[in-house]
This record gives sequence, structure tokens and C-alpha cells, in this order.
Amino acid sequence: MSQDTPDTPLVPTSTPTAPSGDAPADAPAAVVAPEEVLARLQEALPGRVDTSPEALALAGADRSGYKAATDALCLVRAESVEDVQAVCRIASETRTPVVPRGAASGISGGSVAGDGAISLDLNSMNRILEISVADRVAVVEPGILNGDLNRALAEHGLWWAPDPASKDISTVGGNIALNAGGLLCAKYGVTREAVLGLSVVLADGTLLELGHRSVKGVTGYDLTALMIGSEGTLGVIVGATLALRPVVTSGQVTVGGFFPDVVAAASASAAITAAGLVPAIMELLDEANVDAIRRYTLARGEDASALPEHGAYLLVQTDGPGAEAEGARVAELMEANRGQVRLTSDPEVADELTGLRRLVFPSLEALGTVLVEDVAVPRSKMPEMFARIREIEAATGVQIPTAAHAGDGNLHPIAIYEPVEDASATGVAAGIPADVWDAVGQVFRAALDLGGTLTGEHGVGVLKREFLRDELGDAQYALQERVKAAFDPLGILNPGKVFDL
Amino acid sequence: MSQDTPDTPLVPTSTPTAPSGDAPADAPAAVVAPEEVLARLQEALPGRVDTSPEALALAGADRSGYKAATDALCLVRAESVEDVQAVCRIASETRTPVVPRGAASGISGGSVAGDGAISLDLNSMNRILEISVADRVAVVEPGILNGDLNRALAEHGLWWAPDPASKDISTVGGNIALNAGGLLCAKYGVTREAVLGLSVVLADGTLLELGHRSVKGVTGYDLTALMIGSEGTLGVIVGATLALRPVVTSGQVTVGGFFPDVVAAASASAAITAAGLVPAIMELLDEANVDAIRRYTLARGEDASALPEHGAYLLVQTDGPGAEAEGARVAELMEANRGQVRLTSDPEVADELTGLRRLVFPSLEALGTVLVEDVAVPRSKMPEMFARIREIEAATGVQIPTAAHAGDGNLHPIAIYEPVEDASATGVAAGIPADVWDAVGQVFRAALDLGGTLTGEHGVGVLKREFLRDELGDAQYALQERVKAAFDPLGILNPGKVFDL
Repeated sequence: MSQDTPDTPLVPTSTPTAPSGDAPADAPAAVVAPEEVLARLQEALPGRVDTSPEALALAGADRSGYKAATDALCLVRAESVEDVQAVCRIASETRTPVVPRGAASGISGGSVAGDGAISLDLNSMNRILEISVADRVAVVEPGILNGDLNRALAEHGLWWAPDPASKDISTVGGNIALNAGGLLCAKYGVTREAVLGLSVVLADGTLLELGHRSVKGVTGYDLTALMIGSEGTLGVIVGATLALRPVVTSGQVTVGGFFPDVVAAASASAAITAAGLVPAIMELLDEANVDAIRRYTLARGEDASALPEHGAYLLVQTDGPGAEAEGARVAELMEANRGQVRLTSDPEVADELTGLRRLVFPSLEALGTVLVEDVAVPRSKMPEMFARIREIEAATGVQIPTAAHAGDGNLHPIAIYEPVEDASATGVAAGIPADVWDAVGQVFRAALDLGGTLTGEHGVGVLKREFLRDELGDAQYALQERVKAAFDPLGILNPGKVFDL
Repeated sequence: MSQDTPDTPLVPTSTPTAPSGDAPADAPAAVVAPEEVLARLQEALPGRVDTSPEALALAGADRSGYKAATDALCLVRAESVEDVQAVCRIASETRTPVVPRGAASGISGGSVAGDGAISLDLNSMNRILEISVADRVAVVEPGILNGDLNRALAEHGLWWAPDPASKDISTVGGNIALNAGGLLCAKYGVTREAVLGLSVVLADGTLLELGHRSVKGVTGYDLTALMIGSEGTLGVIVGATLALRPVVTSGQVTVGGFFPDVVAAASASAAITAAGLVPAIMELLDEANVDAIRRYTLARGEDASALPEHGAYLLVQTDGPGAEAEGARVAELMEANRGQVRLTSDPEVADELTGLRRLVFPSLEALGTVLVEDVAVPRSKMPEMFARIREIEAATGVQIPTAAHAGDGNLHPIAIYEPVEDASATGVAAGIPADVWDAVGQVFRAALDLGGTLTGEHGVGVLKREFLRDELGDAQYALQERVKAAFDPLGILNPGKVFDL
């Protein structure tokens, strides 16, 4: 396991040596001075290389709270595939780390650039190159926001299914780099299922077209799937051919139920799955979430009479032509599990029922700084995972309200804490106190213990790499490192992320 | 491009040298005599090593017609994960090629073992280890037949969606190794979407658990997805955790339409896609298929009055709660495109309508030996692909009736020929005459030309490897070889398949 401290640089201080045969023939063996790298970048990309303190501060952070210990070399705003190729070529020749960056809405530190790396900003490459109704595909640049894309697609009756909560601020390239999930995955799949092909620039500047535009295709290894979720460590995504779905036009039914406790709500959720129903959305809020929302609502002087003094909440939405029948069955199963249920097809009431889910983060942020975690367990283990989190809370005194995408067993335990000045003992640089980080570590291990995974949709980034080996085991960890080396023999792409490399 | 002839051995005659550091420390550098390899296998797997002529003949063929030029060393019937590990260990130590084998129902030569290789038969590992309704997963050994699994799942109201036409004779392990498709992919996805985790034995005998049992999971690279479709070249699949769906219980509507020609049928299919409909099945038979089915029916003394003298056929099935409304809309769109339409929810009539699709192969096999090809193009390019095939038929005189999974643009051009004794000039050893192979090559290039792919669901195996570089390009080809080496540094797993290696 890694022994990283906040003082550990994001990138190795020693220059990795190139395996013979893999390095460009003209690559210099010696380290090039940062000024020289900067000069080459400025020459190749005039006006697009930013070394201002603001740019470096931007490059050094994402939404995790994690910050790079020292500054990046620069932030390069790429405007074309050729720009990305030029950056990668210079980076390879000079052995300079490159950290691809979209909207940096991630919360695992994956796009944070420091320690002399090039922060390669792809936000200017945000065009929709094509929308084809006949092929049900869109071809896009990586910097387009998920929400902007879906607004454009809606005009054609089409829809790109990945639906992370961050969709209005996160890029499609970032969604792909993280294999983003969201609320709709149990029915509509994760990002991997919605990407047919990728344009990728390798570390040495080579442009590859991976995958295909046809629905099916099995020629060679599925490197498209391998790229998805690789967090910028294998190549830079510069384009994507996305698989679209027709917009779901028929009725939507929303069912909200309050339960005496989270175990009853989780049982209702399990009963819905066991009954063979496939809701579009199934979200579970535990007692602490509901309590925080009630207090937050009262504090704002709003009406909280619909919220119980104590209880958990299960929100289900069904859609498509079977929505009504499915919704009615969901309501029955909730009631059979001691739920107080409201069912509606009225958009206004639906908005009220789904609105509670949207208050999860604001209401917790009113209580302190939040660390949003992201584990997934087999669906049947959800009640046990909630119980384990309760035990960890009791043992550590750390509050960890937990909301879950209950349809797919993906839990977001959210630790609430007061940031500390010197958090150097915690293994992360986000001001997280040691006892909080320790409690969160216990949550990770509980998920693994129940046959689950460290991260359902947020990625490993920097924050979870110390736990990676626990999940993968030594042999798979070593194999993953060999795969990384097959793509990036010099180790210049997003070093220090995902792996210890 | 490869210049393989049927005389080219399946495996390199020279022993690959191990990259330093990757070989087991105790691996001998020298080649071990085949008798010695056999003795080691017999000692480690008593009673499970078969060297009979029958076993070697079995090992040397699949359903493609392709046959190994010389014999395999032996066929090993593995009964456990430990057996597979023992075989791989001995193979690594002695640098002996290993060719994993399921039901060998493939038609690209991928499981054919010759030239002294170990044919590693996994059919005895055919248990269902677990079916979990709560988690909607099944854990299985690789040798279970797709059809047997689905019969067992049906008792629990569950279903594994991959639906290759071979489902009654093909194994789940083989489905995964090929990323099998089938008739239902446009609505229910390919095999990759239906696998959560894999147990894999690497070339050196290491057992890895890839993926997870939870619906979501993004820890590290998605090696599960990479293994799917890798055709036995990266590792041996010894177990799988499968994502299941609830059985679709609500009504099924079947619509069959005859059209004046294939272009009209393809236009109807395109209109159905453009209307945002997602049929479970959408199959297109061209004029030659319909004609062959009519003649085959008459030759058997059966009633062929429902079949037109000339025309193409489009078969659509809708399912789920919206089946009726969708079916009605499909019928309208077919009629708008000059279709003579029958719509039914009566299972007997539906069986009659779908029965035509089942007659495609028997009716063509009555005309000669068939070479079933498998290209995919973007959906909008299907009419043009049909036109190209017509042109190739006209130019070469080779008959190529073509059926298509029209919902996803996957075409099966089926060349009909009389086998020749000496087919050494054709590049394959299946008795395919040179002019037929040349015509098929033109079909492949037409598919690539239209933005499609060489193989939608059957795999590359031996038969298509000479075209692989045309689709991937040199840079991606080289990267795929590096990925192969990361998994199998000695190059002993299914050498000569997919790649020239």
C-alpha cells in the first residue's frame, strides 16, 4: 500500500527511463529544463499556454478539496486535436507529465496538476461535430458539457443516457474518463454502454481511432472500453462517437415513501428489485439525510410538515410505456414494507418528491464540510452496508449520513467534518482530520468485505489510490501497471493518479 | 498484411524468447520435447489428457470449415480452475501454445488447435455456481451452454440477454470470448453489457478475479471489458459473474412484411429506427434469401403460397409493456414503405413469421457449401452495403445472399460455393475457391469503406486476421500487440489468432 502524504509530489521526481524500443528515436535521454519545455510549448501553441497564478491555481485543484502541493508548469488550452498532439509530443520528448483536464468537477483529485506538470485543458474543444438520427449517434469533442449536449440532442428526440448529478457542469470527456454513473444506471447503463468509439491521443502524440460507428463490432481488443474509466492515464480523449437513445416520451410516474428506518426503506428497495421491476430512478436517503433536510427546510423558514421527525426516504421513478403499472406495483411494495407512500404523475408533485433528493448536499453542507464518498456493493448487501456504516459512526464518532442509488447498490456515505489546518497525518491534502479519514477508510474496507468496490462512479484519482491494491490484489495490480506501460511507456500521462506510479 | 497460406502453421515454429523479468524465474530457456510436455501434463492431470486421433481431430476444427494443418499435442479436459492453472503453468514453463476451447461452435477458426498446441477443453466446467435473485446475478463456469443457463434462469424469472443464434450449442465462456451478439442486441445489448466480473487464468497460471459483483464499479482499468471479445488470446476464462434481467413477461407483437426489393425493406427498417422505436428483433432477408426459402419449402412438398415470387422480408418483434403500440407503428411504417404486412400477437402465427428467419441457413445450405460472413456498418449505410454486395456479386459471379440484424446494422453476407480440393491459393484452409475468397474480401473492404467493421459478432479468429490491420491501422495494431504482451509475454495463448503473432 502506498504511504503517500500530502508532501508526496504528484509526479515522480526522478525521470522514468524509457524502455528501449518504445521511446521516440529522437527523444533526448536527459531531463530538459522547465523553461525550455515552456518555450517549446509557447512556440508550438502560441497564445494557448498560460502560466498565470490564476491558471496554476485552477490547474492545482478540483472539487474534491485536494490541492497539489506545488505548482504545475502551465495550463495549456488546447483548441484542436493537433494542439493535443503537439503537447503530447513535447511532453514525451522532454519527459514532462501531462494531466488532462475537463471541467475538473471530479471529486477524487484525478485532474489535479502540480509539480511541474502540464495541465492540458480540453474545455475549448467543445463542439458537437455531428448528430445523426439515422445512425443514432453523436460525434463530439471532449469539452462539451453533458447538459449542453443533451439539450442539443433533445431537439432531435434523442438522448445520451449518462446522467451524473454533475451533468450541468461536467464534460462528456470527463464522463468518459471516469465512466460516470448517475441516477439512471440500473435501467439505462453506465457511460461505458453509451460510447461506440473514441479518438485518443497517446502519450507520444499518436492519434488513434478506437472502436466504431456501428452498433456492434468485435475487431481486435476493445480498447474503447479500456479507455473508459482510465482517468487520463492511458491517453487523452479528443473525440467520441456516442450511442444515443430515443427520448423517453411516455408517462413518468414518481413514487416517494417515508419509512420508519433505513432498513425498512432498503427492504422495500430490495423487494422492488426482487419483483423484477426496473425503475429509471431508485434513490434512498437515510434517517440522517431526512433529518438534515427537515432542519435545513425549517432554517430557511419553509414548510417542513411533509417531512417526518424521524425516518428514511425512498424515491422511485418509472418511465416508458409500462410506467403506470410499474409505479403502482412499486407503491404496493413500499406499503408492504411500512412505507407512507405518495404516487403521482403530476409533474409539480413529482418535482416536490424528487426535490428532497436534490437537497441532500445543500442540507449536509449546512452542517459542515462534506467528504462525499462512493462505494458500491451487491444489491442484496445494502442493508448490511448501512448497518456497517452505523457501526463505524458509533465507534468513531464521525457522522456519515448516506444516500444511495439503491437500484444499483451504489452508496454515497458523506462524512461531515470541520477542516483542520495541518492535515498532513491523514494521507490526503484536503484538510480532512485523521479520525475522519480513518472512519472513511473503514467504510471502504466494509464495502470490500461485503463483495463490493471502492468506487462505483467517482474514480480512484489521488484520494483512493492507497486502497487500490486492497481491491485488485497484487497480481491484478501488477497486470494493470503493465497495461499502463503498454500505452504510456514513459509514464508521463497523469502520473500518481489511480496507481502509485 | 499477413501473407498466410494454409501451410502456415498456427503457431510460430520458433520459440518466442521471454522478455527478461516477465518469465517465471524457474522457466527453462530451452525448448522442451513434446513427449516431456505430455508427460508433465499426464502427471498433473491424470485421465484428463487425450491424445487419441478423435480428440486431435476435434481439437483441429470448429464450425468454420477451417482445419489445422497438423495435429495438436493433445486435448486436455479441464475439470477445475486448478486444472486450468496447472495446464498454463506447464505450458509457460515449456513454451507450449495453449488454445482454449468451448463448444467450438465458432465460425472464424478461433478455437482451432494444431501444430503441437495444447487444446484446453473447458466443456466439463459447466456448473451454475449461483443464481441470486436479490443481486440479479448468476455465477457460472465457462462451459455451461447459453441455452441451458437460460432454462435454469427462467425458473427464477430471470434471463441472460446475450442471444446468439448458436445459443443451444454455444457456451457462455465462448459467448464472452467472442463478445457474442445475436438478434436482440439493438434493444438488449451485446455480451459485454451482460458481464460484471470474470475469473481468468493468465498464461503463467495466475488466477485473477476481474470486475465486481456490484452493478457499478470503476476501480482501476476495466480489464473485464478488455477480456470480453479477446478470443482466448489474453487469458483463459474460468468463471463469470453475469448481469441478469427480469424475463420480459408482457405481450410480444410480431410484424412480418414482404417488400418489392431489399432497398424498400431497408428503407422501412431505417424509418423504424428514425421514428425512435426500439424493437427487440429486426431482421432483414434479401431477395435471394426469400427465393431460397421458397424453393426449399416447395422442395420439401410444403405450402409456399405465403412467399412471394420475388421480394425481400423484414421481421420485427416488439416486447414489453409498449409492445402493442410499437408494433402498430412498425406496421404503419412498413406499409408506408410498400410492405405487405402481417401483424400478430398470436404465438402460432408469430412462429410462422419468425420461422422464415430460421430457414435462412437450411435453405442456403441446400444450394451449396456456405461461408457465413459478418460485417457491420452504421445503420444508415445498410442500403448502400446491400447495393455494394449486389455489385460484387455482379462483378465476380459469386452468389452472396445476405441476411441482416437490421436493428444494429450487422449483415451476414453468405457466399455459396462448391468446395475445391486444393484451396491453397485462397489464404484459408476451408476449401474455399480463390474467386469466392476474393469476393468476400471485397465485401470486407466495402464495409470498412462505409465506416463499418470487419466483424460484428463472429470474431477475427484465423479467417479475418489478414484484414485486421486494414481496420485498426498500424499504430493501433501495434498498441494491441503491446496489450497482448502485457497479458501474455511469452505469446503462448492462442497464438496465430486475431493477430499474426
